[in-house]
Amino acid sequence: LSTQAPKGTRDFYPADQKWQNFIFDTWKQVCIQFGYEEYEGPIFEHLDLFTDKSGDEIVTQLYNFQDKGGRDLALRPEMTPTLARLVNQKNRQLKKPFKWFSMPRLFRYERAQKGRLREFFQLNMDIMGTPSIYAEVDLLLAIIAMLQQFKLTQKDFIIGISSRRVLAAFLQQIGIEQADAVYPVLDKQAKISREDFMQKLKECGIDLPLAQQLDEFMQCKTIDQLVPFLQSEPAIMAFKELQTLFAALQQLGMQDYITLDLSIVRGLAYYTGIVFEVFDAQKSMRALAGGGRYDNLCARLGGEAVTGVGFGMGDVVLKNLLEEKQLLPTEFATDPDVFIAVFGDNLLPAFSLAQSLRKGGLKVAQTLQKQKFNKQLDAANACGAAIVLFADSEANTATHIEGKVMATGEQTLFAHEQLLQGSIVHGTIKEN
Amino acid sequence: LSTQAPKGTRDFYPADQKWQNFIFDTWKQVCIQFGYEEYEGPIFEHLDLFTDKSGDEIVTQLYNFQDKGGRDLALRPEMTPTLARLVNQKNRQLKKPFKWFSMPRLFRYERAQKGRLREFFQLNMDIMGTPSIYAEVDLLLAIIAMLQQFKLTQKDFIIGISSRRVLAAFLQQIGIEQADAVYPVLDKQAKISREDFMQKLKECGIDLPLAQQLDEFMQCKTIDQLVPFLQSEPAIMAFKELQTLFAALQQLGMQDYITLDLSIVRGLAYYTGIVFEVFDAQKSMRALAGGGRYDNLCARLGGEAVTGVGFGMGDVVLKNLLEEKQLLPTEFATDPDVFIAVFGDNLLPAFSLAQSLRKGGLKVAQTLQKQKFNKQLDAANACGAAIVLFADSEANTATHIEGKVMATGEQTLFAHEQLLQGSIVHGTIKEN
Repeated sequence: LSTQAPKGTRDFYPADQKWQNFIFDTWKQVCIQFGYEEYEGPIFEHLDLFTDKSGDEIVTQLYNFQDKGGRDLALRPEMTPTLARLVNQKNRQLKKPFKWFSMPRLFRYERAQKGRLREFFQLNMDIMGTPSIYAEVDLLLAIIAMLQQFKLTQKDFIIGISSRRVLAAFLQQIGIEQADAVYPVLDKQAKISREDFMQKLKECGIDLPLAQQLDEFMQCKTIDQLVPFLQSEPAIMAFKELQTLFAALQQLGMQDYITLDLSIVRGLAYYTGIVFEVFDAQKSMRALAGGGRYDNLCARLGGEAVTGVGFGMGDVVLKNLLEEKQLLPTEFATDPDVFIAVFGDNLLPAFSLAQSLRKGGLKVAQTLQKQKFNKQLDAANACGAAIVLFADSEANTATHIEGKVMATGEQTLFAHEQLLQGSIVHGTIKEN
Repeated sequence: LSTQAPKGTRDFYPADQKWQNFIFDTWKQVCIQFGYEEYEGPIFEHLDLFTDKSGDEIVTQLYNFQDKGGRDLALRPEMTPTLARLVNQKNRQLKKPFKWFSMPRLFRYERAQKGRLREFFQLNMDIMGTPSIYAEVDLLLAIIAMLQQFKLTQKDFIIGISSRRVLAAFLQQIGIEQADAVYPVLDKQAKISREDFMQKLKECGIDLPLAQQLDEFMQCKTIDQLVPFLQSEPAIMAFKELQTLFAALQQLGMQDYITLDLSIVRGLAYYTGIVFEVFDAQKSMRALAGGGRYDNLCARLGGEAVTGVGFGMGDVVLKNLLEEKQLLPTEFATDPDVFIAVFGDNLLPAFSLAQSLRKGGLKVAQTLQKQKFNKQLDAANACGAAIVLFADSEANTATHIEGKVMATGEQTLFAHEQLLQGSIVHGTIKEN
């Protein structure tokens, strides 16, 4: 019987899970600081929730199956369809706009490779029910605050921002009608040579003069450079929205974190407005996060029209980046404050002591079987305890208990009363 | 397109998720207080991990499927096989004994009914690598501390304890050889009449005199009552272990939470020692938790022999009980401290203010679009904010900001400096 996890999935031993929790806790903390509320849904959904949104071709990447009642189900490959389903189910009862987040497990049957697994976690933050560009401002501020909370700086990551509305209006303005065929080419523009780019546009049936106009447009690196290209009414309206977003983020001091990047199109068919992706500064990894505005999704899935904007941030690329930058922590708030080692045969006094120390708020591990003292110290070390107390049969009633501060190796007497009332940080007793 | 979740699964809107988080956070807090370390594994495993452990008949309750690479996989119906796989994979590197916990999502294709869903969460706590009965003591203390943390008392729940070793030794002592056929009958003993019990034993091929002996034995309600029944050497050894467990828990003041219940057998074939189940005091619900010692599991799954003891506590019955006892909280630490409402057209000063308040540690939501003031107050109320600040275009530089304490309706001036440095509890500013 194999002891390996299924291909593309991960086992999280305690040392791994501590890092996962560091990521989850940081995600959650910033979401809550920004006033987002958590939601969740089932791990599997009816298959048509995904095919109706993204088309049948997505089935090739799905873990889909029939249950024993003949239902066609699929493990969720993304959270947004579930979000839209929840909104459609209770649309009238939901006060809008609302800000929600979730940290779902997602599943995609893809070739497993660096930064991409078959089972992964993804933070989702979404604002539903407002067309205001300040929803985008709120989300982008939250992304920056979150990456800062991980101790990443403007030297480590950059948010590329574009607008599907601007792209669509410009294509229309210059007379390109096959927008859906052109988007995938624009999406590749930053990664391929100019010749390849022009060649691919030609393959889409774009004449050379139009292709040249599009190429010039795509060279724009700032909002100001865009101005002369946008002349139609829809193009100017779309531009103003993008301009408001950049101006707001600049006024809030975020100019070093953002850049105009017209090659960001986002593969999914449902984006309608602002789109953005977050990359490591060297762009040496896959995207850290990506999202945008999707104003038609709820209606597309059979509900009323509800505007939405949101993003997903996966755990895999983020953890790779934090590892590379050596920003994963080595000490964890969940490690025990105290490990109670036992002299002699009677384990019960140690259990009594443990119970009373826990009532005072300490995190307490202890010896569970008769064991050599060195083995007990090893165990204390392995679980990351800050101090070890040496419990004899009087431990529970003594005024002082001998112990050892693990970080320094210092042996000392701890006042029982202080242990009962205090909390211990890195082996030092801190009074409440 | 249906807006319903698949049968037997749940949607967690923010109001539901707050309760789930209350359960998860409490589980986790007590695990950490007791020095257990968190682990996790994949949502699906290779099918044979489950069939090798529990036999092919379990497949009827599994969500099993082939992935696109032809692998036979199954959504995990329990966590213990994954735990055993992890232990078998790194057995030599793991310092023993160790205490681990996990809060997996599990999946069983069963008839959905009260207290039983097709997708649910289950706290698992396990101690591996020690035969010491103090592992059982540790787990049972943790269960009691956990249910107390939920504000449940000895009037609300009871832990029934038995021993597969005692049962097996007694059956052997009186000459019953078909133990595997008898266990399911003993498991039902408390729920059926004496006549039905005797009839079912007869159907197992147990002669009347033996059945009567077994019936008398099963009437034992205390440890002391067991003594005269246990005469063989293995029966006496097994009894002593059970006696030590009860004595330890009594000395630790837990006598009101535990009872001897010989009808607890536990369905799963792999338990070898102490077994226990936790019920609401009226036994009106399904079990809150159940577990025991399983010393052969790792070996059965192809690894070396590693002793283990653990339990699972599901979220569904627990939540039903907390609901019935009105112990689910109504205020949550994740609700925003401040909601910033906006006078006028310019939302930017409110964003600046929000950013600086978050730096001081406050949880801040805010208005995202031009909106009538009453609508903004509604939004503040809906998200559970403690105070609303009224931001005009000077809000970010003013020395005082007008606001409203939501709980009392009191309108007052908040000192900007205090907001930046303070934290707010139920609308009252608390200085750090």
